[in-house]
Amino acid sequence: MNISYEQLQHQFTTVLLKYGFEKNKATLCANIFAGNSRDGVHSHGLNRFPAFIQHIKEGLINIDAEPEAINREGVMENWDGNLAPGMYTATLAMQRAIELSKENGIGCVAVKKTNHWMRGGTYGWQAADAGCIAICVTNTIANMPPWGGEEPRLGNNPLVIAVPRKKGHVVLDMAMSQFSYGKLQEYELNGKPLPVPGGYDEDGALTTDPKKIRATWRTLPIGYWKGSGLSLMLDLLVAGLSGGRTVAQITAQGKEYGLSQFFICIDAKNISASTVEEIIIYTKSSSGTQIRYPGENVLETRKKSLEEGIEVNDEIWQQVLKL
Amino acid sequence: MNISYEQLQHQFTTVLLKYGFEKNKATLCANIFAGNSRDGVHSHGLNRFPAFIQHIKEGLINIDAEPEAINREGVMENWDGNLAPGMYTATLAMQRAIELSKENGIGCVAVKKTNHWMRGGTYGWQAADAGCIAICVTNTIANMPPWGGEEPRLGNNPLVIAVPRKKGHVVLDMAMSQFSYGKLQEYELNGKPLPVPGGYDEDGALTTDPKKIRATWRTLPIGYWKGSGLSLMLDLLVAGLSGGRTVAQITAQGKEYGLSQFFICIDAKNISASTVEEIIIYTKSSSGTQIRYPGENVLETRKKSLEEGIEVNDEIWQQVLKL
Repeated sequence: MNISYEQLQHQFTTVLLKYGFEKNKATLCANIFAGNSRDGVHSHGLNRFPAFIQHIKEGLINIDAEPEAINREGVMENWDGNLAPGMYTATLAMQRAIELSKENGIGCVAVKKTNHWMRGGTYGWQAADAGCIAICVTNTIANMPPWGGEEPRLGNNPLVIAVPRKKGHVVLDMAMSQFSYGKLQEYELNGKPLPVPGGYDEDGALTTDPKKIRATWRTLPIGYWKGSGLSLMLDLLVAGLSGGRTVAQITAQGKEYGLSQFFICIDAKNISASTVEEIIIYTKSSSGTQIRYPGENVLETRKKSLEEGIEVNDEIWQQVLKL
Repeated sequence: MNISYEQLQHQFTTVLLKYGFEKNKATLCANIFAGNSRDGVHSHGLNRFPAFIQHIKEGLINIDAEPEAINREGVMENWDGNLAPGMYTATLAMQRAIELSKENGIGCVAVKKTNHWMRGGTYGWQAADAGCIAICVTNTIANMPPWGGEEPRLGNNPLVIAVPRKKGHVVLDMAMSQFSYGKLQEYELNGKPLPVPGGYDEDGALTTDPKKIRATWRTLPIGYWKGSGLSLMLDLLVAGLSGGRTVAQITAQGKEYGLSQFFICIDAKNISASTVEEIIIYTKSSSGTQIRYPGENVLETRKKSLEEGIEVNDEIWQQVLKL
């Protein structure tokens, strides 16, 4: 069924207020969940909302906590997320990184003890709206084996890179696994096989069946050894810079909370708009009908969602109405 | 055959002096070429040296030029490489980024009109030796089709991330294609097929034959659409931040020179050594015998090369002796 952005946003706000969120925090979090579904990222919008509430019930997210700055060295600030809702802290941290970059060319906020930021692209769009380039990373629970190994020991540690652009920002938001767990869930909900192998089944064979991969937790890193290596580097960066928990420590907890993230902003005021256009136009000049730049689908999907409503998964929507 | 590091370094220096290099510049460039072969990266050591000399003969590299700082905003510096030898400029730019990061937590040097830096990992090791985290990127000539396209419109735009570590730095150095052209050349020289498909043959079928891929210039991006998107973002960043040439502009020249690069350094003095160890140990605890962290092979190979000599390709070595 289709529901409006406002309906979705209103329902999320209502539930969050019911669970004791302070009003501004409820609105910010509801906007992000509804915005993610509006932009087509259902896996980190409506479809993730019940798990978010579950984490609150389990005490993994502290809805009353506020993140705090605990150290600053030059353009680098360290924050403690104090287990506040992840998207709330990520929004504030990115806002601070934007300010630092406006003053100094570059700014970075590294955050320990934060929570899942849902769709990382949200903060890329936030920075780009403010005229900044963003590079941000989060770690996760171990959900991907390193190249050459069988058991998950790496997170898929999503990486976001955003570049502002008048006609629609260019925003890459990618996990280090060929498919994020959110995407695997989406394919499974839609009963579709993956377009390319995304991980291993219980016999250790590569498969396009999202359900089997979700069962084994053996996702395939992008580019085999390359995505495996990049994931390890990103954990070093987020845990190292924030002084927070590593993928190993998060995994030892048994539940995915208390994550490490960083938000780098670079003031983009000197970036030439024509350079950005040229790169996009040149890329699309290769023969082929489906060449897209990162984030291109977002604005189209957003427009469609606002005009025609957001197509939601009925079962999950009913579940959220009862929360 | 095996030759010593000193022999290799001496021969490179001799040739560079013969071609008119100033002594310090000859030594720096020869050290980098010899060091790359010593560390096992033959594709950007000895095997690349003849092409480097060819570029000098063609006037694409200006051996007398010096890079210069042309702008500074906060911790971000802009340089013009003036077409000086790429590894010379990259070394100086990284040195400056290190200084900026020691003063301000983070520093960045973006360079336009520079040349091929050979092995990007060189500058990662340089930063890590100085106690810094490094993130650096270069663009290239178009050598990879975007996902969904047939003709090359993206560079494989290598990305380097380095984290300092007492027992051996962790240094990722990866092109956005599944195999760099240097690696493809190496497999071809050794008469070996690729371990996984690395691109397309003339009929548009995926292949493990490095020769066929080198003929079509249709390399496969890591993670299909993901590496394609990341490559585009990296070109936006290097060309955007440096104000230099895009992959499109480099390709229009017909020859790979006048590239755009950036060098970000983050002071790593607060990075916990035990965090770094924990991440490595945890990753290696997955069942499997060949789990490696990025850069792990480098120190082993270096040790072996210094003890037993460097195994070089005879034909290319003879060619270099005659330069």
